[in-house]
Amino acid sequence: MKKNMPIGIFDSGLGGLTVLKSLQKKLPNESFVYIGDTQHVPYGNKSESSIIGYSKILSQFLINEYKVKMIIVACNTASSIAIKPLNQLHDIPIVDVITPLKSFATNHKSKEIKRIGVIGTYNTIHSRSYEKLFLDINPSLRVFSQPCPLFVPIIEEGLDGHPIARLMIKEYLDPLLSNNIEALILGCTHYPILYNAITSYVSSNIQIVNSAEILSIYVKNFLRESLLTNISNNCETNLLVTDLSQHFNQFATKILNNNFKSISKINLF
Amino acid sequence: MKKNMPIGIFDSGLGGLTVLKSLQKKLPNESFVYIGDTQHVPYGNKSESSIIGYSKILSQFLINEYKVKMIIVACNTASSIAIKPLNQLHDIPIVDVITPLKSFATNHKSKEIKRIGVIGTYNTIHSRSYEKLFLDINPSLRVFSQPCPLFVPIIEEGLDGHPIARLMIKEYLDPLLSNNIEALILGCTHYPILYNAITSYVSSNIQIVNSAEILSIYVKNFLRESLLTNISNNCETNLLVTDLSQHFNQFATKILNNNFKSISKINLF
Repeated sequence: MKKNMPIGIFDSGLGGLTVLKSLQKKLPNESFVYIGDTQHVPYGNKSESSIIGYSKILSQFLINEYKVKMIIVACNTASSIAIKPLNQLHDIPIVDVITPLKSFATNHKSKEIKRIGVIGTYNTIHSRSYEKLFLDINPSLRVFSQPCPLFVPIIEEGLDGHPIARLMIKEYLDPLLSNNIEALILGCTHYPILYNAITSYVSSNIQIVNSAEILSIYVKNFLRESLLTNISNNCETNLLVTDLSQHFNQFATKILNNNFKSISKINLF
Repeated sequence: MKKNMPIGIFDSGLGGLTVLKSLQKKLPNESFVYIGDTQHVPYGNKSESSIIGYSKILSQFLINEYKVKMIIVACNTASSIAIKPLNQLHDIPIVDVITPLKSFATNHKSKEIKRIGVIGTYNTIHSRSYEKLFLDINPSLRVFSQPCPLFVPIIEEGLDGHPIARLMIKEYLDPLLSNNIEALILGCTHYPILYNAITSYVSSNIQIVNSAEILSIYVKNFLRESLLTNISNNCETNLLVTDLSQHFNQFATKILNNNFKSISKINLF
């Protein structure tokens, strides 16, 4: 029974749609329920206790109302801060967007990488989650971090192809590049939308790591063991928001190429 | 008694601090209590019903806890949307940041202005509040509006002197300038921080209108009739936030030149 239930995903807003898109691609037979907490977006500059509070309410709702078999925290800020309290609260698997990067740090090819750059929101960078994860695996790694607070508004305004995007990529990445990083972790679910702009600015020797993709592979491997759905049709994706937002609708249509059934507002807070 | 009570001010976050600063200057004997609703910032892309709900709770708190003699809605988005419901709810004067602009539109000098540009957040522009106000006074005026969603994050990141500010000023203002505007209304309480960057981009023939200044004169005239404090010392400014934010503290210190007594977190939501 449980294996045919949907996968729950939540994010502070619309950034996590890149994670959903990647999951839809890797797991075409699964159903998804995604909540964007548009009432509280952005999480990046909110307090830890607020973020933990919102995460608990969102995940409990997914379990109670949709009987989800697994929850994916598709927000780096919430992943940095709320994953422990959520694991204490629920007995279904909770996957965050940071832990799957362990596989990146431990795989053969990456073992040659010694200098890693991480970009994200203030809260994600301040939490040092990526740094701790990498240093835990290999204490000789050097991790350089850079908050990029303007990337999210630039992306949400659809300005990822505008000169402003290039200007801010230069502003934020130059300090990392001067540290001779060999890999760059896109530590925010919005950032894959800047993938092309970033790759065209940095040297091709630098490996750009999209955590949404790594997470999707991790989730597929995890489900394969016991929880992959055995119904091959009737899968669907439903989107929920905590506050109405035309912005969210436009963005979802664009990012997911219309690959969802509905967008509904829920009253949670 | 009432005349010696503080003036209450609320905003979605820190933008309204420019209004507070202007009021402190014009009314040096008054005390102020300012709430920044940092838990819900930004209001610019939230639904009308959410903004009305937050505004009611914030204003009721100022009345119950601080016995304020007047409330200033120092947020253009809330001014556009919540002023009617607030007036129905409370019997103290409620002043928004838009209405005082009537005096601008009706004064002698401005009467020669026929083409007005308005910049603000999506919600403010979408509400057409400024347009309605001006056309109500003079239906032959032409009003051109432009949402500038990236200005707030640029200002909050302290990038008002960075090339990115000039790039986005060009992007957003060029369509207005091509309409030959004679005045430009800064329709968001954050925007006075871009005043210098904007004046150096547009022609000196265009009058830049800072609504915080016009509001302060309006409030001073209003209070002069009956409610100006008669205690000339002991006045103080206290700042409250609905979510802790280091950002707010830094910004308040910078904008207000340390001219406040305390910053405290309140639990309202």
